[in-house]
Amino acid sequence: MSQPETKRVKTDTGPEYELIYWPMIPGRGEFVRLLFEEAAVPYTDTAKAKDVDNAVSQVMELASSTDNPVFAVPALRHGDVLLSQTSNILQYLAPKLGLAPSDSTGVASAKLNQIVLTILDGFVNELHDTHHPISIDQTYEEQKPEALKRATYFKDARVPKYLSYVQRVIDANPDATEEEPWLYGGSLTYADLVLFQVRTKTSIPP
Amino acid sequence: MSQPETKRVKTDTGPEYELIYWPMIPGRGEFVRLLFEEAAVPYTDTAKAKDVDNAVSQVMELASSTDNPVFAVPALRHGDVLLSQTSNILQYLAPKLGLAPSDSTGVASAKLNQIVLTILDGFVNELHDTHHPISIDQTYEEQKPEALKRATYFKDARVPKYLSYVQRVIDANPDATEEEPWLYGGSLTYADLVLFQVRTKTSIPP
Repeated sequence: MSQPETKRVKTDTGPEYELIYWPMIPGRGEFVRLLFEEAAVPYTDTAKAKDVDNAVSQVMELASSTDNPVFAVPALRHGDVLLSQTSNILQYLAPKLGLAPSDSTGVASAKLNQIVLTILDGFVNELHDTHHPISIDQTYEEQKPEALKRATYFKDARVPKYLSYVQRVIDANPDATEEEPWLYGGSLTYADLVLFQVRTKTSIPP
Repeated sequence: MSQPETKRVKTDTGPEYELIYWPMIPGRGEFVRLLFEEAAVPYTDTAKAKDVDNAVSQVMELASSTDNPVFAVPALRHGDVLLSQTSNILQYLAPKLGLAPSDSTGVASAKLNQIVLTILDGFVNELHDTHHPISIDQTYEEQKPEALKRATYFKDARVPKYLSYVQRVIDANPDATEEEPWLYGGSLTYADLVLFQVRTKTSIPP
């Protein structure tokens, strides 16, 4: 794959990174990919395997693993470490990839994590539920009447509330400018990549 | 308030802790309280204020704050730091209160956070949605038919899946014993307190 010009320097010299996620959909795995792509750090990705059946098998196997349990993918393998939960993977990765400050007090890490959790709540979890308000194991077509109600509520009440939060975060950042409206501090962090991805995915106007 | 015998030593000598949460309901604020209570570390709690209207005002004011935006309570004030998102508050607090290992690599922090995020997903977020499948701004009574469907699905499909995950986590912990089935490592962590609270709240049998 051709890599974009690197904007950050990889500070981590540890083992390889391996993203484990369903093939065929960008989904929550895409948030993890964006960090690697921005940092121009190599990683393997089950979803990009040519053998889709094999990729699915790997994910299924992981999901039933007893020695290192995960509830759902995406998961990240990094040497002996296996992690799940999207926000958690991002929080672990970002400082290693130069996309969050190194942070001895935990404050920057928590501030960024708070922003990311909230964006994911609104524009991933709640957005997803608009199509699956009754059951995530059933298709949208099987819950259309409820989905219409939930989607209407989401559009009218939740989207404005979440967008207002995001705007307040940018406005409250003393280091954000009109040209560089970062969510945290004076340069790009992984929170900005998360916002970029949900904006791309949901077609929120700029 | 009478304090239980302290089991942990407070290692933090920083500023006072202030929990900001709605009065009248335990809700997500209770997870934060449990850490302070277990560690026997003093904290203030808007929800315990005698003047309920004043407590509500404080929460409302925080929710519309522009200089330090939060999307929803619980929030934690600790000196200059204001944090929201339940899992994020707990992750920040736990090592300071002796309820998570101090962690230079971020691995223990991420492992615990992964467990806590998953338990909260299942037994707080999805459980809550059983009563508000269409809109969290409307009462349960306004969405009873949908709530019945969602609750049935939750009970039949989601609870077993989440309980199985929790059991797998305990089984995979080499330091857990039958007498001391900790979720992580060989002693109580804040993840165990989170599980304790959802078990208490949801009456999951021991």
